[in-house]
Amino acid sequence: MALEKLDGLELPAAADMHVHLRESAMAELVVPTIRQGGVNTVYVMPNLVPPITTVRHALDYRRQLQELEPNVTFLMSLYLHSSITPEVVKDAKGAGITGIKSYPHGVTTHSDQGVMSYEEFYPVFEAMERENMILNIHGELPPSAGEDITVLSAEEAFLPTFLDLHRRFPKLRIILEHCTSAAAIKAVESCGPNVAATITSHHLFMIVDDWAGDPHCFCKPVAKLPSDRRALLKAAVSGDPKFFLGTDSAPHPAVSKRADKYAAGVFTQPHAVGLVIDALEQGIYTGVLKAHDVTKEKLEGFLSGHGRAFYGVTDERPERIVLKKSGVTIAKCLYSDDGTVEVVPFRRDKLTWHVEWQKS
Amino acid sequence: MALEKLDGLELPAAADMHVHLRESAMAELVVPTIRQGGVNTVYVMPNLVPPITTVRHALDYRRQLQELEPNVTFLMSLYLHSSITPEVVKDAKGAGITGIKSYPHGVTTHSDQGVMSYEEFYPVFEAMERENMILNIHGELPPSAGEDITVLSAEEAFLPTFLDLHRRFPKLRIILEHCTSAAAIKAVESCGPNVAATITSHHLFMIVDDWAGDPHCFCKPVAKLPSDRRALLKAAVSGDPKFFLGTDSAPHPAVSKRADKYAAGVFTQPHAVGLVIDALEQGIYTGVLKAHDVTKEKLEGFLSGHGRAFYGVTDERPERIVLKKSGVTIAKCLYSDDGTVEVVPFRRDKLTWHVEWQKS
Repeated sequence: MALEKLDGLELPAAADMHVHLRESAMAELVVPTIRQGGVNTVYVMPNLVPPITTVRHALDYRRQLQELEPNVTFLMSLYLHSSITPEVVKDAKGAGITGIKSYPHGVTTHSDQGVMSYEEFYPVFEAMERENMILNIHGELPPSAGEDITVLSAEEAFLPTFLDLHRRFPKLRIILEHCTSAAAIKAVESCGPNVAATITSHHLFMIVDDWAGDPHCFCKPVAKLPSDRRALLKAAVSGDPKFFLGTDSAPHPAVSKRADKYAAGVFTQPHAVGLVIDALEQGIYTGVLKAHDVTKEKLEGFLSGHGRAFYGVTDERPERIVLKKSGVTIAKCLYSDDGTVEVVPFRRDKLTWHVEWQKS
Repeated sequence: MALEKLDGLELPAAADMHVHLRESAMAELVVPTIRQGGVNTVYVMPNLVPPITTVRHALDYRRQLQELEPNVTFLMSLYLHSSITPEVVKDAKGAGITGIKSYPHGVTTHSDQGVMSYEEFYPVFEAMERENMILNIHGELPPSAGEDITVLSAEEAFLPTFLDLHRRFPKLRIILEHCTSAAAIKAVESCGPNVAATITSHHLFMIVDDWAGDPHCFCKPVAKLPSDRRALLKAAVSGDPKFFLGTDSAPHPAVSKRADKYAAGVFTQPHAVGLVIDALEQGIYTGVLKAHDVTKEKLEGFLSGHGRAFYGVTDERPERIVLKKSGVTIAKCLYSDDGTVEVVPFRRDKLTWHVEWQKS
């Protein structure tokens, strides 16, 4: 138990700044697992079918989510799309919508409405700067961008575009979502304080070998090389406020995973915090981290403080969680109440750290 | 139709120097597709369960295969294993067995009996040199060999071991099987004439992106980068006798592919020759090759002549095939006669070149 010292540690409730909660039976299955993972604030992705491109759609969706779980704060986003104008940005801000998510065209689940070129959105980005809305970027070039762009190089190849956006809009708060590479960490570190990055728990665990042959470990951006994983682990416990948790938990029906062509997405929601501790512990076992790198202060920052600060939100409740080191095994699969949806979680059937909620 | 000039071209029957034919219902399904692919000579892999480590097992297996298809020449191999001694090598040669296949421990399907270290086999390799038996190597370091060894680097990281074996046993005929990287092509080119490499049809098509999300495109070694694919395409039409076809066709039941953890292997047997022409054509469309790179002489060499020459075998029959450019679509799946086994072929549902057999 490399992190035994954390057993019983009390922390602020976590904020998960990148979640896919889906709709209908899948949402009914997933949303109640948010608090199970130690999280009471989430930033919700807009890639439904059709994508959320209007204020009304976002507010309707938030209402559905709140009905499923009143004790979570749902921060909402729009999907960057030609129908998003500076006026929409202003309306969205007024209606309490937090940010806008940009998907490059065709790189991941439900990104077929995504961005072909950023230039057409410069007026939108200006409006976002004025309104202090956050731009969330899926940072990968699509394969069509060049014959040597692969799932392995797509993020690094996108970084010049990312840095160019920051240079053009220095006051725009931009998040490089689910960053997966040492190059991305370095690029984000090089930017001003308006730029941050989310890191998932599964990318703290995995390299390319893990998704080779396992559909439940396959996501976009893909997990990359051992050197990339090491950089992510170090960033997570760096104490740098630019890095914070966004699980990118992305449930898919198991039938879409056990398939001839399967969907990208790793489901981690029920163990959001526990998996981070598991990953840090594995990082210690493999010599990437030292136990003293993992302090209460750095965990607080990565799991809660950095994300809330970047988003400018405080915990409405506020609540606290307690880390527990033993006794919980991740389920082999989860079923919706009506039995129609099965989802396989990341690290199924493995022991995990878990959380308890501090009684107030 | 970049290679229209090949339509109607007559060639010697192809030799596929790396096939997995399995047993029972799967063998009954697969073996009859060998000739469909334009092939009448195959080199058969020994990774059954248990692996083929005795002369008797190899001969029994050949008998089963010949009963399924009398019009194919089955060249047989043993599985390199601690029970293989210089005496076994001598007996095997006397019994008409062609070579010995080395699997590094734990890197692919049924490799759990594989090699941990080559040194213990030096006396076996000396015996193989004396008996003029071929050593077939699955050229990947296992992940346990170092923290930076991944499915992407495992082949390149193995090359020093490969070159060392060649240096120690310069008269031993060694084949680097299913080579997938530009580095491997270069290493093989640097060796003397006793070293060769097989190239699969699927590696002429694929890069890492193709198996990301598609279990039927996943195999070991994995397809790598665009620069690697380009090197393979160029080697295939280089005319260099060191490079020849070994499809590594590796059928798995579809249920083992549509699974939580799926098996490595791509099934190409029914279209062995057609897929090579398809891949070369795609190589021309993407600017990697020129139509004039693909000559009758180079095709003959890659598909038949180089492999037969390296193995020292002539076509027993001999037969000829005719390339046909159109009219055949690869099946979505194939079923065994008893309906118990379903297999999904590579490039399912796509048009392919095919072959007809020249009537004698």
